[in-house]
Amino acid sequence: MIRLSTAQSGFEAEFRALLDQARDTTAQVDAAVASIIAEVKRGGDAALLDLTTRFDRWTPEGGAAGLRVPASEIDAAQARCAPELLDALDLAATRIERFHAAQLPNDVELDDTLGLTLGMRWGAIDAAGIYVPGGKAAYPSSVLMNAIPARVAGVGRIAMAVPTPDGVLNDLVLAAAHRAGVTEIWRVGGAQAIAALAWGTDSIHPVDRVAGPGNAYVAEAKRQVFGRVGIDSIAGPSEVVVLADASQNPALIAIDLLAQAEHDESAQAILITTSAQMAHAVEHAVADHLATLPRAAIAGASWDKHGAIIVVRDWEEGAALVDRLAPEHLEVMVADPQALFARVRHAGAAFLGAHCPEALGDYVAGPNHVLPTGRTARFASGLSVFDFLKRTTWISAEKRGLDAIGPAAVALAEAEGLTAHARSIAMRLGQG
Amino acid sequence: MIRLSTAQSGFEAEFRALLDQARDTTAQVDAAVASIIAEVKRGGDAALLDLTTRFDRWTPEGGAAGLRVPASEIDAAQARCAPELLDALDLAATRIERFHAAQLPNDVELDDTLGLTLGMRWGAIDAAGIYVPGGKAAYPSSVLMNAIPARVAGVGRIAMAVPTPDGVLNDLVLAAAHRAGVTEIWRVGGAQAIAALAWGTDSIHPVDRVAGPGNAYVAEAKRQVFGRVGIDSIAGPSEVVVLADASQNPALIAIDLLAQAEHDESAQAILITTSAQMAHAVEHAVADHLATLPRAAIAGASWDKHGAIIVVRDWEEGAALVDRLAPEHLEVMVADPQALFARVRHAGAAFLGAHCPEALGDYVAGPNHVLPTGRTARFASGLSVFDFLKRTTWISAEKRGLDAIGPAAVALAEAEGLTAHARSIAMRLGQG
Repeated sequence: MIRLSTAQSGFEAEFRALLDQARDTTAQVDAAVASIIAEVKRGGDAALLDLTTRFDRWTPEGGAAGLRVPASEIDAAQARCAPELLDALDLAATRIERFHAAQLPNDVELDDTLGLTLGMRWGAIDAAGIYVPGGKAAYPSSVLMNAIPARVAGVGRIAMAVPTPDGVLNDLVLAAAHRAGVTEIWRVGGAQAIAALAWGTDSIHPVDRVAGPGNAYVAEAKRQVFGRVGIDSIAGPSEVVVLADASQNPALIAIDLLAQAEHDESAQAILITTSAQMAHAVEHAVADHLATLPRAAIAGASWDKHGAIIVVRDWEEGAALVDRLAPEHLEVMVADPQALFARVRHAGAAFLGAHCPEALGDYVAGPNHVLPTGRTARFASGLSVFDFLKRTTWISAEKRGLDAIGPAAVALAEAEGLTAHARSIAMRLGQG
Repeated sequence: MIRLSTAQSGFEAEFRALLDQARDTTAQVDAAVASIIAEVKRGGDAALLDLTTRFDRWTPEGGAAGLRVPASEIDAAQARCAPELLDALDLAATRIERFHAAQLPNDVELDDTLGLTLGMRWGAIDAAGIYVPGGKAAYPSSVLMNAIPARVAGVGRIAMAVPTPDGVLNDLVLAAAHRAGVTEIWRVGGAQAIAALAWGTDSIHPVDRVAGPGNAYVAEAKRQVFGRVGIDSIAGPSEVVVLADASQNPALIAIDLLAQAEHDESAQAILITTSAQMAHAVEHAVADHLATLPRAAIAGASWDKHGAIIVVRDWEEGAALVDRLAPEHLEVMVADPQALFARVRHAGAAFLGAHCPEALGDYVAGPNHVLPTGRTARFASGLSVFDFLKRTTWISAEKRGLDAIGPAAVALAEAEGLTAHARSIAMRLGQG
């Protein structure tokens, strides 16, 4: 953990070093992934079975059909879940549905007096692929966050791929998929899952867009199939910036920082505060929590390597630092959080006030927890219905509309040397 | 050109072959591009100058500062343009601005009775990079179409990069950049331009998102900087599908097909018609036009290699074929174009009725002409203000809101083994 203060000389250099700190330890797997994708394109289902045996140490009975999880297995998994967990999932799903429905955009239709009508129509993609990591990082909340936006957008087919290392599949993940409206579940993971979703096999029909987090192989595979299908952004290690003034409870700030740090050692938690006293208090509170947290080894390593406490002179400085960090998550724990949030331009998601820890948004609040990392909130956004919608613009013209604006188009087409373009309009201008 | 009919046996196989036809002749330039990007990252301005000398056979006076086009040169270029062309540019720009302003989305704010407020706030990126091809494919219309959405979105800094082979720069391109609101123009092209925009040099500050068409090097460079900055989709060869019934004028349909074909030999123009007679008439009209078109060599080669005329039994069949083609451009020249358009799900942009040739949309109608190619309209959309906006979601909770939904979040966090997440909420539940 580093301690910085904007009042110190040398701050700018230290802050830049923090910005440039490489946290993403992604292995170079380009060639391995290219070869896996080629294998799936060539071998289809047989390649999927081979790769699943090789990487997940598991082979389905009955060939490729056995990769699909049957409804009976989903029902059985759900029956094994604790009722209070199913209730929690349902509350989360209901709230996520409601928030994402509020995102649904309106079509545009624009008449002008010249005799032209212009429009923009939103439509859902036909099929979405949702990748869900398996094994130790099997997160039912992630299933809800990835699948619900697709369903709310109106996507008819939602195919989920989840690896089942050694054949093990998480009951709550299946229950979440069912609640979220996933229409098919495939026990396949890694680059081979992304390849199958993008290119299709005899069993798995290709989808139009792939979303969801994954390891380095999954991320690289998404990069390689980009263009063939749409992809969501490629997630890096998670991060939070907490803004806190002197009036806050340091123990709460400390646990919020550690909730971020416990994800993995590459995660980053940063406190920006106007109070040097609060900086000290939070540092001690972090140490206190670490003494009792089950994931203290991970959280402690993240805090040591990537954590930071920055003391600023005022919130103008603080907001400017936030914009340079463009954090995935931003907690604003100050007297007037809305006012300070209004001064920030770049953040994936914000959590306003003392009663709003980021974990609330990770699970049940409603907004998506799939968010831009690694300073990409400068230009990227969290997962939403927009990831599963596309637009078609349209133009309709009466003859008088063509007559009004056609000559300008002819002039520009001729200037660009595109004479068939010019002629396609000129021929119509002459006609009644 | 191939002639297909859904009534013939073997149609499905032939249509599939048409769908799978490789039109993109993109060279494998991955390694060359990676090395250019590395050169710019390492060498900055000096590397840009070297690469510009090497690829564009041109070196600015006064070092890297000479890469920037001064205001005086823009003014002089504009003064050399024909007034009627400047008027045409202005009409186009005004209409493009108006249409894109109509796209601007609303923020979301959602109160629930439990004591939580959820929101989604749109904001512009800070800086956009616009790539404009130079030399033979210098299209002022493309400058308007790429830069205006950024400005309408509220982007404060718009940096344009345009190569000037042998030092030559198109006057109308400069005039278009000025009209569109580009804030800086750099005479640099290829992968080196994309690298400079993404990573920055001493002279060129990095941007947050890069848009604009380019050759294979530019496309691959965009792919390689994706993640560091946002990119628009990677454009392939252009295409049009024209739907026409028996009542249309075959000479107009033919020129619309050729307006697409004249872009380059990889372009594709397809007619789908319910009338075998129309199919024949259009085929002859294409031949007639080709006898007199200046770009007949290119348009003829495109039509020969990739053109198609498909006769369908009814528009239900026709609409289904359109969805499988998911064309960049769709002309709907039938009695009730809106009704048929409503049955189509996948197209980049539609042009409805006999008075609405695609070329109208290429220049002056208002919607964007940067559109998804190569069947990507299944999931991708044309360039718009959305390419230059991003969203921040936010959550605000009263204590009673946290109390209402917090326990469910605690249950899910514990199920996922994320105990600091659980504790960050549980600690707050206990407090007044």
